[in-house]
Amino acid sequence: MSVPAASTKKTAKKTAVRAIQTPASGAELPADGQSRTVIERITPELDGGRFPIKAVPGEIIAVEADVIADGHDTIAVRLLYKHTDDAGWNEVPMTMVNNDRWAASFVIEKPGRYVYTVEAWVDHIASWEHEVVLKVKDGQHVTSELLAGAVMVDGMAGRAEGDDKAALTHLASVFRAGAEDNSRYDEAIRLALGPQFLEYAHRYPERQHATRYRELGVDVDRARAGFSTWYCLFPRSTAEEPGAGGAPAHGTFRDVERLLPRISGMGFDVLYLPPIHPIGTAHRKGKNNNVVCQPGEPGVPYGIGSELGGHTAIHPDLGTLDDFRHLIQICKNYGMEVAMDLAIQCSPDHPWAKEHPEWFKKRPDGTIQYAENPPKKYQDIYPVYFETADWQNLWLELRQVLLTWASWGVRMVRVDNPHTKPFAFWEWVIAEVKKEYPDMIFLSEAFTKPKVMQQLAKRGYAQSYTYYTWRNTKHELQEYMMELTQSEMRYYFRPNFWPTTHDINPYILQPGHEPQFLIRYFMAATLSSNYGIFGPSFELMEHEPFPGKEEFWNSEKYEIRHWDWNKTNKLTYLITIVNQARHQNAALQSTNNLTFCRIDDDYLMAYLKVTGDNRILAVVNTDAYNRRAGMVQVPIGQLGLADWQEYTVRDLLTGAAYVWRGEWNYVELDPYILPMHLFKIEW
Amino acid sequence: MSVPAASTKKTAKKTAVRAIQTPASGAELPADGQSRTVIERITPELDGGRFPIKAVPGEIIAVEADVIADGHDTIAVRLLYKHTDDAGWNEVPMTMVNNDRWAASFVIEKPGRYVYTVEAWVDHIASWEHEVVLKVKDGQHVTSELLAGAVMVDGMAGRAEGDDKAALTHLASVFRAGAEDNSRYDEAIRLALGPQFLEYAHRYPERQHATRYRELGVDVDRARAGFSTWYCLFPRSTAEEPGAGGAPAHGTFRDVERLLPRISGMGFDVLYLPPIHPIGTAHRKGKNNNVVCQPGEPGVPYGIGSELGGHTAIHPDLGTLDDFRHLIQICKNYGMEVAMDLAIQCSPDHPWAKEHPEWFKKRPDGTIQYAENPPKKYQDIYPVYFETADWQNLWLELRQVLLTWASWGVRMVRVDNPHTKPFAFWEWVIAEVKKEYPDMIFLSEAFTKPKVMQQLAKRGYAQSYTYYTWRNTKHELQEYMMELTQSEMRYYFRPNFWPTTHDINPYILQPGHEPQFLIRYFMAATLSSNYGIFGPSFELMEHEPFPGKEEFWNSEKYEIRHWDWNKTNKLTYLITIVNQARHQNAALQSTNNLTFCRIDDDYLMAYLKVTGDNRILAVVNTDAYNRRAGMVQVPIGQLGLADWQEYTVRDLLTGAAYVWRGEWNYVELDPYILPMHLFKIEW
Repeated sequence: MSVPAASTKKTAKKTAVRAIQTPASGAELPADGQSRTVIERITPELDGGRFPIKAVPGEIIAVEADVIADGHDTIAVRLLYKHTDDAGWNEVPMTMVNNDRWAASFVIEKPGRYVYTVEAWVDHIASWEHEVVLKVKDGQHVTSELLAGAVMVDGMAGRAEGDDKAALTHLASVFRAGAEDNSRYDEAIRLALGPQFLEYAHRYPERQHATRYRELGVDVDRARAGFSTWYCLFPRSTAEEPGAGGAPAHGTFRDVERLLPRISGMGFDVLYLPPIHPIGTAHRKGKNNNVVCQPGEPGVPYGIGSELGGHTAIHPDLGTLDDFRHLIQICKNYGMEVAMDLAIQCSPDHPWAKEHPEWFKKRPDGTIQYAENPPKKYQDIYPVYFETADWQNLWLELRQVLLTWASWGVRMVRVDNPHTKPFAFWEWVIAEVKKEYPDMIFLSEAFTKPKVMQQLAKRGYAQSYTYYTWRNTKHELQEYMMELTQSEMRYYFRPNFWPTTHDINPYILQPGHEPQFLIRYFMAATLSSNYGIFGPSFELMEHEPFPGKEEFWNSEKYEIRHWDWNKTNKLTYLITIVNQARHQNAALQSTNNLTFCRIDDDYLMAYLKVTGDNRILAVVNTDAYNRRAGMVQVPIGQLGLADWQEYTVRDLLTGAAYVWRGEWNYVELDPYILPMHLFKIEW
Repeated sequence: MSVPAASTKKTAKKTAVRAIQTPASGAELPADGQSRTVIERITPELDGGRFPIKAVPGEIIAVEADVIADGHDTIAVRLLYKHTDDAGWNEVPMTMVNNDRWAASFVIEKPGRYVYTVEAWVDHIASWEHEVVLKVKDGQHVTSELLAGAVMVDGMAGRAEGDDKAALTHLASVFRAGAEDNSRYDEAIRLALGPQFLEYAHRYPERQHATRYRELGVDVDRARAGFSTWYCLFPRSTAEEPGAGGAPAHGTFRDVERLLPRISGMGFDVLYLPPIHPIGTAHRKGKNNNVVCQPGEPGVPYGIGSELGGHTAIHPDLGTLDDFRHLIQICKNYGMEVAMDLAIQCSPDHPWAKEHPEWFKKRPDGTIQYAENPPKKYQDIYPVYFETADWQNLWLELRQVLLTWASWGVRMVRVDNPHTKPFAFWEWVIAEVKKEYPDMIFLSEAFTKPKVMQQLAKRGYAQSYTYYTWRNTKHELQEYMMELTQSEMRYYFRPNFWPTTHDINPYILQPGHEPQFLIRYFMAATLSSNYGIFGPSFELMEHEPFPGKEEFWNSEKYEIRHWDWNKTNKLTYLITIVNQARHQNAALQSTNNLTFCRIDDDYLMAYLKVTGDNRILAVVNTDAYNRRAGMVQVPIGQLGLADWQEYTVRDLLTGAAYVWRGEWNYVELDPYILPMHLFKIEW
């Protein structure tokens, strides 16, 4: 229920009337000693309100708070919320769950910033009603109470208008008549105890000496922040024909456009490109991270900057800025958008090294300090020195880089290693860019310690890379999902799951075992509403490692590859089907709507995702080598099904349907056939 | 380690130098963009610092915090604390526990208010040291690093004085020499990697761009707030001889003095008296809460006030104000003090009813509203109306009551039903009284909902009544003790355990079964460092209930009782011995130092309390009707004992001693002999 803002404002005014007074005793009294309610432990609330929570339109924000008052009076508790563009508060009555915990929720309708808080007051009208009910039940004659009630109804009439005002004025007179005239007593009692009275009481509360909690924020991103399907490719590896003489041809933005039917056909909606800027030549690395570079080798896209420009220039072999803008445009036709990669580091040839040497740390001999991870040295990279005395101009320049990209039409940015730059910088630059481009989405590529990853998310990253890449067993996966979806992280940390990236070839996939690829893909795409793959390497099940490392042999970071972009296989089939299911089922478009189901096998894992009446049950065999069977427990009570009721589980991957009844049902998954079910539950 | 306040102040100054700037771009930059550390989730911290935690002198405050920085640099984290009377901060280095959680502690030395916080900065000197170690191990020649180190050592010298300054100036020159002259390189490296360098680095940190958390408070009460042994009696029931004609004589303060040898002999140090004010006659209640009062009946001490005065007057039958002051004085000779009872309510004859009718709620007919718990009516009591427009004068008057009592020498106040008066009032009045009498201790008698009881403790009550009275089974007791001592409550809610009170005759004691009295007493006195009994009713095992209720038949609230104050029994023996043990063993003087031990029986309960090298193991049979035996697991590892080591457990109740070895040991308790052990563990 929504009440006009005016009523709230009136209350605020009343509360403020009593100023702090200092009587003759020398004792200082608080402003409103008549205020009796206490509001504590609101959830969600991050770090005492320091950070907003995150949401997307359509999301329900469930708010809870401990609310108490002294004594035995009834209290009224309201959830207040508004979009910051709105003039007044919307109100929702909160109800007590148990143990003085109150709850209510509201729905996010549009992007931007919402604020919410809780207000409470001692509800004398409800207390009066409660008292009258008990006394009447006890057989007492409540004339005195009717007279007290009449005074309260006068007050309600004073706050009402139109018909309500008239009705309440009449009601007060009935109460008075009932108290004075025994023949009218029963009528007065009937009205006092009737539902209409409670309705009025709710609509025209006294709301005196209300307590209001501090305002808490919700950062609302556009829908894609919560539901996105990323495809990473190196545009230089997209040439249609292999190059002459064994050296692959350099792919271009035009080549990428040619591949969009394949990529969007598989269901991807974000095309993420590693850095597309000119690459330095000083200390350029060769194939497989060789410190010696052969003539003609293209270098590492993360060695950003040459005499051709830095972070706002385009690598000439990829095309022109117009070509890049054209790609962005064409992507839109496919329902896709382009994400750029922000790596704040420079090759020694980057223009900043000359123009702003103070943005880099100096060695005692006056040269610029190259990157190190002692005892290792990375002489092809200059890290930017954020502790520079000229940090303000550095920040402004980096902001300008992002604003320039935005002016090209880019609205998604994957940030490389954000955890090696100050948190304060990210909070500032993300807010600054979103001031002008509120639809900008930042993805944090921080594979580091948990609290550092969390902090980056709190500071404004809409999405974050995760440990999914290394969570392999059922136990590890369930524990990690509980942390992501049940701890405080659910409010601000939106996971984006990647089975591999261009930096990570995880040990579990290095054997190149097809069922393992299917499993790792499927779980990423169904556990998390945001996920991505590094293609075509992943879908073609590329797996050869750099010996002993979780990296790829012949990694595209160091060389141009030529791929067969027409190849399809079991995995590309699965990707296509799963992405269709994701687009057709709202339950797969959220991450926090997850419940694990009991299943009596250490490798079989089952999870339910429910959004509204869309119910998806995923069952996956995490053992890629053995057929496994077991009984899965469907929480039918939670779904609203009775024990005797039949329901259908229809596998969206194969079209097969089974009729089940009761909680426990049999499943069997053979990794060499298809190690997963993606059931839609219907009845 | 303590550093002079000056160093802290210097840092604060440096941090503040950079003001917020608004460059031409229109973007607003933060004050210190070079600050890189983040401090979060400090424990203890109550409601974002809104409330102080509590402590007594000698208590150790263990502080933890999440502290992170971007990148891979080493960080320095310090715990800062001070008494508010002190000029500067004391500092303790914090160490990392795991997962970016840092810990340190400090000891409370004196009553009053302490503040503490955490400060952190990127420690470039330590990072440099770490880097040099790795490179030297790798066989690299680190001349460039030595030169960079020399610059840092110059800075350290600049912050040092005397010998240290000279030593550091020399060290810088050795670093430079080592970088330039190969023959001196080894010496420079030896010094760079030596322990002395780290010591200097710690003493003269760069401390640039430090982050400091908000200041958090500790309210430190005198020792008795943490360790006290209460004895409640009705002074009117203390006459030496029964009265003439069956009506007991009215006891006096002088009679109470005569009983002090018995009470202090049993080990009690707080003598708590229910209200000692004149009692009203209007609607006075008779024996066993009869609404009809017979002539000569004394009335209920909680019906406060008559034409003889109110909350600052003394009931004439008890004696004069001088007699009361004399009692307070004599108590001191016995190491005891007197606690008064604040019941903010009035009989209809209370002077306030005439002088301040606006402090009471009016009924529509203009009469004052008596107390109700609908449908029940209590016409002998006028509740004070805290929502009165004249609340400020009401608050000031109540403050004056407490200040008057304090002027008589009273420093402990038990408050009756504080949960029916506003929280804001308590926070204010307790702070006001403690401004003038910092040694005042308030005990909250709120038997109500958990969060209301917690809120009262947060607002300033030093001690609180608990649910102990109704926690009977081993499971209930362990669960409740975990809540009290392991949840956030441990920081602000000091339990005071009562087996019975003058209001509560719990069902478990109504059968009058002696072993049950022993058990209920023993657990109160050994689980909680603060406890009390309602005497002599409890020690004489009075148990007859008001039929069907958890109240006493012939309750002293409604009549004068005549007791045999010379009687002793098994329970008075146990009380005396246990209180001796409490005074002689520091481990029994804290509540939060509790660990439950595993014991393979559903009724046997064992708990360890350790303070310094004082170790007490209590074992109790909660089954008052059957002998029980089992194996108790002593956590010898936690005590620092090896598996093969013998140790002695000496029962402080009986003097019996047993030699044990290893974790698991046999115990057997017969309720009809003695259903508990109170072992002191020694070796």
